[in-house]
Amino acid sequence: MNTFGNILTLTTFGESHGPAVGGVLDGMPAGVPIDMDGLQHFVNRRRTGQTPGSSTRDEQDRVEVLSGIWQGRTLGTPIGFLVRNTDARSSDYEDMACCYRPNHADYTWQAKYGIRDPRGGGRASARETVARVIAGGIAIQALETLGITIEARMISVGPRPDVTNAAREIQEAANEGDTLGGIVQCVVKGVPAGVGEPLFGKLHAQLAAAMMSIPSVHGFDYGDGFDMAAKCGSEVMDLFVKRDDGSIGTASNHSGGIQGGITNGEDIVMRVAFKPVPTLMRDVPTIDRDGNPMTLHPRGRHDACVLPRALPLVEAMAALVILDNYLIKKTNVL
Amino acid sequence: MNTFGNILTLTTFGESHGPAVGGVLDGMPAGVPIDMDGLQHFVNRRRTGQTPGSSTRDEQDRVEVLSGIWQGRTLGTPIGFLVRNTDARSSDYEDMACCYRPNHADYTWQAKYGIRDPRGGGRASARETVARVIAGGIAIQALETLGITIEARMISVGPRPDVTNAAREIQEAANEGDTLGGIVQCVVKGVPAGVGEPLFGKLHAQLAAAMMSIPSVHGFDYGDGFDMAAKCGSEVMDLFVKRDDGSIGTASNHSGGIQGGITNGEDIVMRVAFKPVPTLMRDVPTIDRDGNPMTLHPRGRHDACVLPRALPLVEAMAALVILDNYLIKKTNVL
Amino acid sequence: MNTFGNILTLTTFGESHGPAVGGVLDGMPAGVPIDMDGLQHFVNRRRTGQTPGSSTRDEQDRVEVLSGIWQGRTLGTPIGFLVRNTDARSSDYEDMACCYRPNHADYTWQAKYGIRDPRGGGRASARETVARVIAGGIAIQALETLGITIEARMISVGPRPDVTNAAREIQEAANEGDTLGGIVQCVVKGVPAGVGEPLFGKLHAQLAAAMMSIPSVHGFDYGDGFDMAAKCGSEVMDLFVKRDDGSIGTASNHSGGIQGGITNGEDIVMRVAFKPVPTLMRDVPTIDRDGNPMTLHPRGRHDACVLPRALPLVEAMAALVILDNYLIKKTNVL
Amino acid sequence: MNTFGNILTLTTFGESHGPAVGGVLDGMPAGVPIDMDGLQHFVNRRRTGQTPGSSTRDEQDRVEVLSGIWQGRTLGTPIGFLVRNTDARSSDYEDMACCYRPNHADYTWQAKYGIRDPRGGGRASARETVARVIAGGIAIQALETLGITIEARMISVGPRPDVTNAAREIQEAANEGDTLGGIVQCVVKGVPAGVGEPLFGKLHAQLAAAMMSIPSVHGFDYGDGFDMAAKCGSEVMDLFVKRDDGSIGTASNHSGGIQGGITNGEDIVMRVAFKPVPTLMRDVPTIDRDGNPMTLHPRGRHDACVLPRALPLVEAMAALVILDNYLIKKTNVL
Repeated sequence: MNTFGNILTLTTFGESHGPAVGGVLDGMPAGVPIDMDGLQHFVNRRRTGQTPGSSTRDEQDRVEVLSGIWQGRTLGTPIGFLVRNTDARSSDYEDMACCYRPNHADYTWQAKYGIRDPRGGGRASARETVARVIAGGIAIQALETLGITIEARMISVGPRPDVTNAAREIQEAANEGDTLGGIVQCVVKGVPAGVGEPLFGKLHAQLAAAMMSIPSVHGFDYGDGFDMAAKCGSEVMDLFVKRDDGSIGTASNHSGGIQGGITNGEDIVMRVAFKPVPTLMRDVPTIDRDGNPMTLHPRGRHDACVLPRALPLVEAMAALVILDNYLIKKTNVL
Repeated sequence: MNTFGNILTLTTFGESHGPAVGGVLDGMPAGVPIDMDGLQHFVNRRRTGQTPGSSTRDEQDRVEVLSGIWQGRTLGTPIGFLVRNTDARSSDYEDMACCYRPNHADYTWQAKYGIRDPRGGGRASARETVARVIAGGIAIQALETLGITIEARMISVGPRPDVTNAAREIQEAANEGDTLGGIVQCVVKGVPAGVGEPLFGKLHAQLAAAMMSIPSVHGFDYGDGFDMAAKCGSEVMDLFVKRDDGSIGTASNHSGGIQGGITNGEDIVMRVAFKPVPTLMRDVPTIDRDGNPMTLHPRGRHDACVLPRALPLVEAMAALVILDNYLIKKTNVL
Repeated sequence: MNTFGNILTLTTFGESHGPAVGGVLDGMPAGVPIDMDGLQHFVNRRRTGQTPGSSTRDEQDRVEVLSGIWQGRTLGTPIGFLVRNTDARSSDYEDMACCYRPNHADYTWQAKYGIRDPRGGGRASARETVARVIAGGIAIQALETLGITIEARMISVGPRPDVTNAAREIQEAANEGDTLGGIVQCVVKGVPAGVGEPLFGKLHAQLAAAMMSIPSVHGFDYGDGFDMAAKCGSEVMDLFVKRDDGSIGTASNHSGGIQGGITNGEDIVMRVAFKPVPTLMRDVPTIDRDGNPMTLHPRGRHDACVLPRALPLVEAMAALVILDNYLIKKTNVL
Repeated sequence: MNTFGNILTLTTFGESHGPAVGGVLDGMPAGVPIDMDGLQHFVNRRRTGQTPGSSTRDEQDRVEVLSGIWQGRTLGTPIGFLVRNTDARSSDYEDMACCYRPNHADYTWQAKYGIRDPRGGGRASARETVARVIAGGIAIQALETLGITIEARMISVGPRPDVTNAAREIQEAANEGDTLGGIVQCVVKGVPAGVGEPLFGKLHAQLAAAMMSIPSVHGFDYGDGFDMAAKCGSEVMDLFVKRDDGSIGTASNHSGGIQGGITNGEDIVMRVAFKPVPTLMRDVPTIDRDGNPMTLHPRGRHDACVLPRALPLVEAMAALVILDNYLIKKTNVL
């Protein structure tokens, strides 16, 4: 359950305040050139301290690749990697072992396992996502050799749909000890027609699972998405056109580049909705392990809004799904 | 890729105009009482002709269980089952082998496999979903022995959010040869806290994949979902309460019964957005396999809106996910 | 657990005395020509009554394909199939619900599931293997288009290593109410170098799992196998040679066509050891469900030696593994 | 393909001369006490230099656990771990990039991936097995809390079935630059009846796959194994007995503790056959990448016989299979 994917699989490990977070990316084709500097650069986009209201935990996140890449190329063997946790401040969480924070996974984790590492949220922390960004960053480099590119951007932050002042809005929420959610749009360009699976593994079902597995994500749609539900069939037809170069395309893209779970060659367009960060920098009423009321005082270092840091993560998860399905397609004929 | 689930798995097969559609439900615990009449009754909810604007293809969908259930109880062995296709009218599709219908999977399927059964959409037809309803119907009976219930209902059909006149609205669209989409809400009651997985297999990620794999689904969210993205953190806190019976619950349910991918004991609440049916009963411009423009004349028998028939399907997919995760939880301790 | 394979997967279902035994073969590449008569002919090789001492249960085993093959070619969709059980004689097993037969799965099955279908051994019967033979028969036809052939043959039956008089030997054992085991050798020709996986999925590990999953199999080895353990390294070197056509081969084949889990282009050679059939046509002392001693009188219809009927089964399982790994290899490069 | 297991899964990574070898053990139940000193001690049994003729590569194999164990107990989260490669001597392999060693995976690897890390055999080296021993060592500790124990021992080394002088025999082979294989027997005690799967996942099929995935293994059998093939049915009956404590057992154990793929409560007994080490300390004729003949001069540090070091590895692989199936059994009833 800590493994994701079909042929290309990512297995991750690591608690927020343990020694390291890492993973194993298996099934990467052999011979793919990997630029380690470019990979580190991609991972750095997820680091804290680059936008207003972001956590002050300062992790260097230096990527250490332990296997699977040699002389600048993938070997076809599993790519083991990790980053060390260097700036954990576990004392902030000393009293959290005995209480449950609202909208966090403390209570549900306890109910499931009967034990948990409370320091920094343990494995439930978004710290684990650095492993996904590393693996996805490698997948993105592989996709680029195929002419496939992925870009995520914020399309709303908090109540206002305008993101031009997002930084200020986040800072304002942070100043009040409050937090914001928002919506990220992700577009994948250059995927040829015929990628994806028609039944349970519909490409958008795999993308949905990938995005919904990101901490704090509460919604996913693709193409016209939820708006599609309020339209008539005659309004959302993506009529076929023959392009000048002889290729077949569609005149519109209500369908978001996917028909019946399989790509049609148009851009893949999806939206990912994030809830506001659950940790407020305010006193919050809650209960302890025995059900007694108590007050939670603000502690730890947290983002006021995860969206800026989540962009490379959304791209990473999309890349893993797309590359995996690109490989599956190779097996559809003898 | 025609298999769904982890410990409880469903594998399906069948083309719309082939001899039969069926599946294998594996991993069902042994000794569970199954009421075959109740199962047939559940499957009948998916049949055509029960609501305005529904397809006139009249399949009896008589469930034939071939294994795994004996003397009214599950054996722990795979449950093989099928329904025969008895009312296929393949002549309607004779000229479809050489053209691509817009918003259908004809083109993408051809791009993926280089071959397809054009009769009734082949495997891309929603006809395959009868297998899911059968399997899900069995899972629902198992869940009921645990006190877990699932109910799906329409909360919007077409542009109007009011569903009291949904039947009339669908009929009106059908009269004009047009189609409608809509939104289904699904609520699962009675799941204990601690079910689900914390990382890639977050319960809502598995539910998203399940729902997005239903034909025509374009969006999924849970709890306050997409609305969550526009709220501040202070507005969506589900504060803990100690109930009179000593159990722990939350005073609100913005989170939809799931925290960090694991249930907290509250109702699981999710929404599923369907696009309008892609087949219009109107002339539609399209292209043939060589890219030449042509006109598609209305043919075949189709629903004007799938939502009424989709309700048991949504419940079925939810049941498969919940039961699967209920079983997984058993392995979390020695 | 009733599913086998990685990309090419077989899921089976069916009890010995239920209505049918069948399966779903998923992941077959699209466009492969399938000769249905040839398939039926292959399945017939597994039927009873063709060799001395074989069971008199006369199942026609008429293969009914329900999906995935259209106009003589695979569609890339799951191939659902079944054979009906038509000659079950459940009355033979009426008193077996309350006793455990030695060397059968009655007791272990009860310990695992707490319930079992005792008629004809239920799912534990070798009757289930007809589904494997059907699926494997399809895989064999696909492999033949690639120039890959598979042949299994008996190399020992009972105590005597000479198989020229095997039929007589089996008949003699049957006459005494006794049974025989034996060893099958299977050779796969034409697999190119580079097929298989280097670590947990070593080709011979997958073949071992496939063969050991056949009822009554107690041992597996490949190449020089167990004999290899008694040799010095210098005795079993397969030295490389450059063939006249420029290709690379080996001068000997102690390694059985596999090095490090991956094919080297030589014939794949393996052995499969079967225990004698556990059902004797003699009185056998055993216990009932309460542990009380009782005597089991001979009943039911059984083979005195399974080897003649097991040959197509061994070929079928080998074919599924080889084709699956052939497909995996396609994903090793971008 | 670098992942093993069903519910309890092990994913490994690492090349022989890369920075580290490691893995992720996922699905371990929560709350299991783990003695880290005991684990290191178990891993040390696999180290070199403890028996005659063993490699002089001196790796400390200090186990570094990165996650999943906290305050002496498992958390239910993935256990990430690694050991550093500290004594690699890559210069020994400088000229091996352009030649293929007989009975090694050089040629097959190249055929599969088109690229390979030739240093020390890369990922094809038995160095990877240290990750399995670590994971298996953890599983063994979990099994011990259930009263289940595993022990592997040599029952033959080289041509002589007597192992009392095995050390001398290995040293003699080493002195001549030659190598030896042998047979390991592994016995698992204390597994209750009802563990294992009846069809493709028969317990002995899973054990076979586990053992055959160990480098150099060429054969596997269980119970009377290959000898069973030469016996009559009447000779190998394991008749049931009621023990004094009321439990049911068998009077003999020809079946090796497994009936129909499921344990019967008797000891599980299996044999694993190892081929002789492929690297001789002699000149060996071979070919280069262009097929030209060349002579391979002895280089690198190798064992003359792997059996002494393989014992903890056999135990580790058995433990992973047994614990995995123990967990699966929990899901057989609601």
